[in-house]
This record gives sequence, C-alpha cells and structure tokens, in this order.
Amino acid sequence: MKVGFIGLGVMGRPMAQHLRKAGHELFVWARRPDSVTGLDAVVCATPAELGRQCEVVFTIITSSADVEGVALGKDGLIEGMAAGSVLVDCSTIAPDAARHIATRLGEKGIHMLDAPVSGGGQGAIDATLAIMVGGQAEVLEKVRPLLDCLGKRIVHIGPNGAGQVAKACNQMIMVAAIQAAAEAMRLAKAAGVDCAKVKSALSGGSAGSRVLDVMGERMVQRDFSAGIEARLHHKDYGLVLAAARQSGVPLPLTAVVDQQLNALMAQGWGRDDTSSLLRVLELL
Amino acid sequence: MKVGFIGLGVMGRPMAQHLRKAGHELFVWARRPDSVTGLDAVVCATPAELGRQCEVVFTIITSSADVEGVALGKDGLIEGMAAGSVLVDCSTIAPDAARHIATRLGEKGIHMLDAPVSGGGQGAIDATLAIMVGGQAEVLEKVRPLLDCLGKRIVHIGPNGAGQVAKACNQMIMVAAIQAAAEAMRLAKAAGVDCAKVKSALSGGSAGSRVLDVMGERMVQRDFSAGIEARLHHKDYGLVLAAARQSGVPLPLTAVVDQQLNALMAQGWGRDDTSSLLRVLELL
Repeated sequence: MKVGFIGLGVMGRPMAQHLRKAGHELFVWARRPDSVTGLDAVVCATPAELGRQCEVVFTIITSSADVEGVALGKDGLIEGMAAGSVLVDCSTIAPDAARHIATRLGEKGIHMLDAPVSGGGQGAIDATLAIMVGGQAEVLEKVRPLLDCLGKRIVHIGPNGAGQVAKACNQMIMVAAIQAAAEAMRLAKAAGVDCAKVKSALSGGSAGSRVLDVMGERMVQRDFSAGIEARLHHKDYGLVLAAARQSGVPLPLTAVVDQQLNALMAQGWGRDDTSSLLRVLELL
Repeated sequence: MKVGFIGLGVMGRPMAQHLRKAGHELFVWARRPDSVTGLDAVVCATPAELGRQCEVVFTIITSSADVEGVALGKDGLIEGMAAGSVLVDCSTIAPDAARHIATRLGEKGIHMLDAPVSGGGQGAIDATLAIMVGGQAEVLEKVRPLLDCLGKRIVHIGPNGAGQVAKACNQMIMVAAIQAAAEAMRLAKAAGVDCAKVKSALSGGSAGSRVLDVMGERMVQRDFSAGIEARLHHKDYGLVLAAARQSGVPLPLTAVVDQQLNALMAQGWGRDDTSSLLRVLELL
C-alpha cells in the first residue's frame, strides 16, 4: 500500500520504518529536511503532494495547531488526499481539534482517525505501542493491518475525539505516577533510606507500575536525560486541564501535578526527562 | 519451628496458615476469640504466654499504639520472649514506633524486624507478598525461610524503621495511583467516553499498573466492596504525612490525595474499597 508519514521524530521515525519493513511504499514530508535522511522513502514537497499519492497518511506531530496546519492549511493534506483515503493522526492533541479536523476532511469524503499512542520511544521501536482510536469502526478495520505493524493493543474507544480523551487519561495517570514516585524517593532520601532498595522492593507489590520500573530507576540513577521530553508532558497536561475545564470536572491531583510541571519548566528542564520532577521537589 | 502469630485479619490469617502448612507449630493470640476459630494452632491466653513458647513471633496489627501494646505492654511479648528470639512485625506503623519497639526489645536481647508487606489480601492468599525489611541483616537471614512461605520479593531495606519508610513510600504511590485512575475515569465519563474501553486501552501502555488493572476495573464495574478497607489507607496516609512533617519534606501530590481520603472518610465510606475515591469526585 502507498502510505504517507509526517512527523519523523523520536516516535514517528521507528513507526515509519516498521511500515516500510512490512512492505509498504513510504512517502514522507518534513518541515526540516534532515528529518528524512536515511529513510527508504519518497520525499514529497508538500503535505498536499504527499496526500495525492497515498491511500493512508499517518501524522504524529506535537501541537494541535501544527496538526491543523498540516491537515487543513495551505498545501495541506486536504488539498491532495482523495475521497475514501484515510488520515491516521497519532499526535496527542485536543479532542476538539481532532473532531474539527475530522469534520473538515469528512466534507471532502476523506476519513480520519484520531489514534494517539502510548509506550514511548522504546514502544515505538519495539512496535508494542498501545493505540487509542477515535473514529468510525469500519475505517479502523480498513487500516488495522497497518496499525498492527506499530502496536500490540489497538482499542476502538469511540467516535472522533474519543481516542484523544483516552490519551488525555493516559497522560494524567502516567505523569501523576511519576510525581508520586518522585515524592516517595524524596521522602525515602530525607529519612536516610536507600532509594534503590525502596524502588526494588516496591516493584513487586501493589505500587508496582511501568512508571516505577522505568522512571523510578532513572530517579535512582539520577539520569535525567530525556526519554520523552518533559515539555511534551507539560503540553499534554495543558490539554487535560482544558478538557476538564470544558467538561466542568474537578481534578485536584492533576492540578497539583500541573503546577509541579510548571515549576520544572521554569527551571529550564523542559528538554530533560520528566523524572526531573524529583529535582523540583529538591528545590523546595 | 515454634512460631507465634498475632493479628489474624484479612492479611494475617492466610499468612499464618501458610506457616502452618509449611510444617511449623503455630501459636496464636487474639483480642477477639472468634479470630482464632478454624486454625490448627495453640491458642494462648496473653501475648506474654505466646512469646514464652515461640522462637519467632509475627504480628500484623492496624495501629502503632496497638503494636506497642502487644509488644511492650502488660502481658506483652516482652514479658515472655526469650533472648535470641525474634519479633517480625508485618504491621504498617510509624518508622519511629518500629525503632522504639526494637530498642526496648533489644534491651532484653530480643531481636525485632519491621517487615511490612504489600500485595493485599490476594497477595497474602497467594503467598506473593512483597516484604520490606528493616533491622539487622543476620536476623533477617535467620527468619528468611519463614518469610519465603509468605512472599516472593523480600528486600532488606536498612536498619529498624527502614522497612516502614519503604512501606510508607509504597502506600503513597499506590493510593496516588488510585486517585489518578479515579480522575481519569471521571474525565472520560464527563467527556462521554466509555470508561471500560479507556481502562482497557491504558492497561497496555505507559500508564499501565497493578492499581489500574485491579482498582480501575473496580471503578468500571462500580464495585466498591472492600478489598483493603479505605480507612486503612487513610491511616497509612497519616503515617506518611507525619514522616514528611518530621523530615521537613514537601509532598504536594500526597497532601492532595490525603484531602480526598478525608472526604471519603467524611462520607462514611471508610469500610468500602479505596476505589471509592471515584465517588468523592462525583460529589463535587
């Protein structure tokens, strides 16, 4: 199949490579030309040109505005993609933005799925991502063989936007778990107890989680080099709190974690790992 | 070996039964006589009498004051246990209380380990508890064959009190994860998205945890009948915040979770499951 891919970062590059390896013909476009080096792909001049040649296009881009620009802007996908083709947006953006893009593309007969992913850079490399899909079930079935190249748990959550709501829930829980691990490590250290042993003991019990295994270990090692950059989680929390405000839902724990992320950003640690939340607690 | 057991509740009863099944001679004492029914054990009149007959005594009791009473009070273990015998306290109590008991017993040559456990009632039944041990390493080695009957991950954290610090960290992280799951479920519902699908999708990604699997499912099913009663987690959070205050450590997320637990208690839900934190969010 002719598959387009836009957004060749930490997540997108290995995802595109999996699609190529599965035998699909790959078309790419990137704002920065060096993003496409080393890929066995046709490089396109604009999203529209890419869209013109592909049956399915994947995007995984940082912000709602950037996805809207690539999809709906001048020389955007909407100007090239044919009726019946599918945009699979794996970005983490506002549910509203996802619905807006789906509606606009729908007017031209172009299908759209919001399909944000979880699992981090390692999950992208291992093709073990969790994929949360919003959109029509029959469109999902059409592209499922492609998603199977990228992830292990592909769940149809509901109509357009629902995938993004699920991803917001994912980020809430994950970053809250990082903050909780940071507070535990901070308390253990203050009490004169070996953090490595605490982390090791906790991994086996009711507090066990993927976050504790991965981010807890980073805290123990004091390795704050980025897995996923903290600024991206900060962005995600903005989406979560906007969704909460819109729905009129009080999220007290999420609000506190957001403030800690603000403090992290204020320290200039946005390009470090989110396990830097431990360092925020050490400032106080 | 002659082994004593005091505290035959949801956790203690299966633990005592595992020790009996492993061939040890079991001695028990309980404040309420009906706690000892159905156990193949010698029932003692007082902790002192129990202590007089055992080489190793296990306790798993709710509060610091109750453990101190059983260990150091009138007719307490200290009046019966011989020099060289070992008290293994699996209760979740204040690190200070653990150190105090260890010191007092130590004056009579009686060894003490703080050995709080994690894994819940199911972990006790399956003998898969995580056990966080504070005290002398050589004393741990002496009783390790007994602990192997109860749990899978037995970690020596440090000197007396260190096991309790690790358990405080465990409870912080676990209940914070319950609150985070509750907030995610609350947001998903408000956004009109199917909570069961969200929970299912998230289990496979970076937000995956034992709490999400077990307590998230309880929230989806709206089954708030108690696994571990919420009042016990409320008690544990009191210990965590006292330790934070003593160490002068700011724990912003933990403080918020504590307030939500206060609200849960105020609703009279202390004997329900801690997944009732979801119901607290629905009150607002």
